[in-house]
Amino acid sequence: MLPFHAINVTPKILVRMISPVLIFIIFSLLLISSSHAAVQDFCVADFTAPESPAGYACKKPADVTVDDFIFSGFRVPGNTSNFIKTGVIPAFATQFPGVNGLGISMIRADVEVGGVVPLHTHPGGSEVLHVVKGKMLAGFISTDNKVYIKTLEKGDIMVFPQGLLHFSLNAGRSPVLLFVSFSSANPGFQLVPNALFQTDLPTEVIAATTFLDTAQIKKLKAILGGTG
Amino acid sequence: MLPFHAINVTPKILVRMISPVLIFIIFSLLLISSSHAAVQDFCVADFTAPESPAGYACKKPADVTVDDFIFSGFRVPGNTSNFIKTGVIPAFATQFPGVNGLGISMIRADVEVGGVVPLHTHPGGSEVLHVVKGKMLAGFISTDNKVYIKTLEKGDIMVFPQGLLHFSLNAGRSPVLLFVSFSSANPGFQLVPNALFQTDLPTEVIAATTFLDTAQIKKLKAILGGTG
Amino acid sequence: MLPFHAINVTPKILVRMISPVLIFIIFSLLLISSSHAAVQDFCVADFTAPESPAGYACKKPADVTVDDFIFSGFRVPGNTSNFIKTGVIPAFATQFPGVNGLGISMIRADVEVGGVVPLHTHPGGSEVLHVVKGKMLAGFISTDNKVYIKTLEKGDIMVFPQGLLHFSLNAGRSPVLLFVSFSSANPGFQLVPNALFQTDLPTEVIAATTFLDTAQIKKLKAILGGTG
Amino acid sequence: MLPFHAINVTPKILVRMISPVLIFIIFSLLLISSSHAAVQDFCVADFTAPESPAGYACKKPADVTVDDFIFSGFRVPGNTSNFIKTGVIPAFATQFPGVNGLGISMIRADVEVGGVVPLHTHPGGSEVLHVVKGKMLAGFISTDNKVYIKTLEKGDIMVFPQGLLHFSLNAGRSPVLLFVSFSSANPGFQLVPNALFQTDLPTEVIAATTFLDTAQIKKLKAILGGTG
Amino acid sequence: MLPFHAINVTPKILVRMISPVLIFIIFSLLLISSSHAAVQDFCVADFTAPESPAGYACKKPADVTVDDFIFSGFRVPGNTSNFIKTGVIPAFATQFPGVNGLGISMIRADVEVGGVVPLHTHPGGSEVLHVVKGKMLAGFISTDNKVYIKTLEKGDIMVFPQGLLHFSLNAGRSPVLLFVSFSSANPGFQLVPNALFQTDLPTEVIAATTFLDTAQIKKLKAILGGTG
Amino acid sequence: MLPFHAINVTPKILVRMISPVLIFIIFSLLLISSSHAAVQDFCVADFTAPESPAGYACKKPADVTVDDFIFSGFRVPGNTSNFIKTGVIPAFATQFPGVNGLGISMIRADVEVGGVVPLHTHPGGSEVLHVVKGKMLAGFISTDNKVYIKTLEKGDIMVFPQGLLHFSLNAGRSPVLLFVSFSSANPGFQLVPNALFQTDLPTEVIAATTFLDTAQIKKLKAILGGTG
Repeated sequence: MLPFHAINVTPKILVRMISPVLIFIIFSLLLISSSHAAVQDFCVADFTAPESPAGYACKKPADVTVDDFIFSGFRVPGNTSNFIKTGVIPAFATQFPGVNGLGISMIRADVEVGGVVPLHTHPGGSEVLHVVKGKMLAGFISTDNKVYIKTLEKGDIMVFPQGLLHFSLNAGRSPVLLFVSFSSANPGFQLVPNALFQTDLPTEVIAATTFLDTAQIKKLKAILGGTG
Repeated sequence: MLPFHAINVTPKILVRMISPVLIFIIFSLLLISSSHAAVQDFCVADFTAPESPAGYACKKPADVTVDDFIFSGFRVPGNTSNFIKTGVIPAFATQFPGVNGLGISMIRADVEVGGVVPLHTHPGGSEVLHVVKGKMLAGFISTDNKVYIKTLEKGDIMVFPQGLLHFSLNAGRSPVLLFVSFSSANPGFQLVPNALFQTDLPTEVIAATTFLDTAQIKKLKAILGGTG
Repeated sequence: MLPFHAINVTPKILVRMISPVLIFIIFSLLLISSSHAAVQDFCVADFTAPESPAGYACKKPADVTVDDFIFSGFRVPGNTSNFIKTGVIPAFATQFPGVNGLGISMIRADVEVGGVVPLHTHPGGSEVLHVVKGKMLAGFISTDNKVYIKTLEKGDIMVFPQGLLHFSLNAGRSPVLLFVSFSSANPGFQLVPNALFQTDLPTEVIAATTFLDTAQIKKLKAILGGTG
Repeated sequence: MLPFHAINVTPKILVRMISPVLIFIIFSLLLISSSHAAVQDFCVADFTAPESPAGYACKKPADVTVDDFIFSGFRVPGNTSNFIKTGVIPAFATQFPGVNGLGISMIRADVEVGGVVPLHTHPGGSEVLHVVKGKMLAGFISTDNKVYIKTLEKGDIMVFPQGLLHFSLNAGRSPVLLFVSFSSANPGFQLVPNALFQTDLPTEVIAATTFLDTAQIKKLKAILGGTG
Repeated sequence: MLPFHAINVTPKILVRMISPVLIFIIFSLLLISSSHAAVQDFCVADFTAPESPAGYACKKPADVTVDDFIFSGFRVPGNTSNFIKTGVIPAFATQFPGVNGLGISMIRADVEVGGVVPLHTHPGGSEVLHVVKGKMLAGFISTDNKVYIKTLEKGDIMVFPQGLLHFSLNAGRSPVLLFVSFSSANPGFQLVPNALFQTDLPTEVIAATTFLDTAQIKKLKAILGGTG
Repeated sequence: MLPFHAINVTPKILVRMISPVLIFIIFSLLLISSSHAAVQDFCVADFTAPESPAGYACKKPADVTVDDFIFSGFRVPGNTSNFIKTGVIPAFATQFPGVNGLGISMIRADVEVGGVVPLHTHPGGSEVLHVVKGKMLAGFISTDNKVYIKTLEKGDIMVFPQGLLHFSLNAGRSPVLLFVSFSSANPGFQLVPNALFQTDLPTEVIAATTFLDTAQIKKLKAILGGTG
């Protein structure tokens, strides 16, 4: 049914007829394109050159090694000795240069009993949250003010669409281990309490734009280190 | 210098030599592509067919008129008789079907003296705010918790990068007229106070993920209509 | 219904138990990512470094101020003392570095009585035209040669899909004020008369590819400054 | 140097140990994903369902055959018995459903001696023009009114950036055969003379927005079939 | 320093002055956009409507529940009783409708001692491989024929750029648990051995295009179920 | 029907009334945007500056000439004196700097009788194969292991979706001339035999991940120059 009668000389026979030197030369012709500039299979971040809207500049191909594509910062847990009882280790392009330009990145989060990942957004990407150990209450809020919330068991994954407010809390009696994936190498991480109470945003502006009482704002600024 | 000597018959002469019937047939050949399906110059939203991740389905080209590309809802001000003294009229793809798929949309906002556009994000697009009348204090917060805030005079425009928390307030003694443009036909509009206090998000979850006092949360839920 | 019994210690209580120093250290951990390179919330144009296909290079984050995100060039009208009785003030990334990489930009246009925005395209983006003052006849032509044209009243907006030929004219007895938004930070602006009659495109090439008479072409070249 | 000592059982040995039935079941597990819906390797156009901003709807995978991915309309030349002495055969998604959603398409153009491809744009994609036979003068105009024009010899390719005005003319003494590739499955094709003189765009609007004389406009409308 | 003296009435006071009914009406105005069509925060896959090049059609918003955003298929290991001693559980849009259109998806893979993930590509996305348990040798090959290979310890992540050939093998003495993330909701999964030896691709075509001996091809076809 | 009575002064009359100097000044105002930085109509590759994920950096506009947009490397056939009897000449951004950032590129391939384009993928783009001379058997394999294969006659085009394994062979009794277009300026070209047998990928890793016999692998490594 497939009429390609022309191939009467099999590659196997061909191979025997040709000198190795010739072969080497010819096959390499296809790769000439990489001679005076990089192939763009990847773009390992070079932090010394200016960034572009598409991400960090690319390391010279000759300087790239396998270690650029591997991140080992998840081997040890995040430090949870803190206010939110949660340790967060990002592997964005800034920490993990191999993902630059590839539209993907990760975070490890360790959440002690009673710990919480506060209300936040990722302006630049969608997220899949994966509960590897423990039990986690997680939720997001849509722009028409519907709440999508559920307790995730060990093994469950939940997706949070790009830019929407979401949060999660340890909902069990043991520590939680989370791995989070993003659809961007630089998804960003904007914590609402920190944006409001750890900055110099004037108290009266916060009051006017959030409807919070001034006393509440001042109390949280004192705790989180905000000014103004 | 440009050696195209071959064009010795000018179009003017050519034209006189050809019968109108022939011309009609031939020029139309280039347009055959539109015969059994739409050209994709645009995709006016058809709300009756299922949406795709890229936006609403497209109206049949034969049903499209110039009015699909025009929105007149900005002729009258938004209703400001409300809590925030601000009236908002969106012209997203949902209200203005002609922008569907084109990566652009607008909002008109009228802000009375003392009025405010509360803390919010647009998960799906960047925004340019344009102060057409009055004086407006506007600002956004970056993910590394820097505040970019300034009073905009009449005529000024300010850009808010995609997904970042921002807000604005009438900073003058007269009503403000704003026109806002977006880099998406469906940028979304997520108001932080409404997401928290106008939904059924449980009070203890809000408390744990925002560090707000329970009393504060309950007070605002009572005002904004939240439950849980 | 939401079974996260584990949160028996409220944040309020937690807060009181922790020293301010510890809090400062820990919350900052989440932001470590910004330590040796920029966060990519935005990419304010740096005109001194080479551009990329995605736009201008990014200014160093430490050099960015709120003024990079604000453009005040729309405070005064464009100069209309000209042939087309129209003054155009662009706020593309080149003039307004804050929009670089954000997929949005604007133009202010003032159109006197009898003024016109000549036939043109924006190769890189769709446009929403907004008539803030006056009355404007506006239209575009689709690739299947349908004309979408209408007189816009004050307040109306009209969308022109990316790359299509369009135009507008003052259709009233008073000056028009237009604000135009684009779905790109660098939409481009290609005026057909200028492309033909203000360049060195040879007259015989114009004649052959537009079917215009040579006399007509020469006349307009004389006016607009074209050569060849 | 590569320490993966664990693989002490080679696949060859493994293979002999397993029954064919088991193998069949297990390898198929990886493909379960395609059971109740299509895999999205491709999206062959289905013209009977509504379009989306991303292109035509997809044919059901079970209905797709190899012929959907092949277009044979280039086997015969385009009809050049016309005004511009040029025959154009598009292979956009509308004619060649296999390219739908893949960001690529083609055109065959035959250009007789003295023939021309009039001034036009492709609003939706960049183009590479390939001169397979003959000699062609080709050019484009940038938005800052620079003309990039040259005579292409047989074998040459030239790129026209998206949306920019361009044109070409047979510059030799023999017919030209062109193959044109696009960076979009629906690049669009907007001929400037046809947009102006083959539509119902009112003569006075054309005059005002192109600076052409009324007599010139009426003359070309008469030839090309325009009204208004 | 921030001169917005106009806000002399705090929100707290405002709230007391307004009737609950009015508040309800006014805040809802901002959400009118969702009245006759869906907001596009997300696009949960509806497998009953035709797909588009951008992914599956969207479920009606009223039918969406929190369970659409959660996938529990990772709670139990994949079945490893097979030839490659590896069990793969995909959570692409086809299995996990909530990720449709969001540019992200996952896979769980269990790899027994001696198990392997054969040479393959994901045509539609980049991948981050995460070794949660055990030790894995993993590698990819760039288009200029460089091999990037390393043994990953527990906790390590490695990125494979879009479309490149890659593979991994259990490199330890205990089972491996992998979680894999993708930069696409439909990355695809093309196993080279299956593409060659489990299809009806004629043996002589395989021989000619891969240089493999006919005997080798026939042997593997017999094992994997290929014909032709 | 189109009520724009206001244009009572035709452009022709206007033109006569204005001094040439004034015209020159005013029309140029529209182009001010290009004064201190490049317009982004295109981004001709500059190989001396660092790349970004979006492609090569852009040459300074003042240095760009028409020759940057033209590639003449297809004038002569590729060298077919080799193992696969096929000569390949790429015109990717690396060889043809004008296509940088424009999402398009090409290849010329000459295939002698008995010649073959081995099994390969383009990780970064879809392909349209065009048989300009001769007869070619071409095919691709989908991720659900369906083979789409057919003999293409002179003039036929066939599309290969992004990233999928494909191949082609001279199926006639005369040389074949192919021109191939891509939906990317850097589609990449990954030959499966070369990736396996021309690299230092260890033989046992190849055996384990492809199920090939060790003898077969060693034989092909000897021919193609692989090590390990």
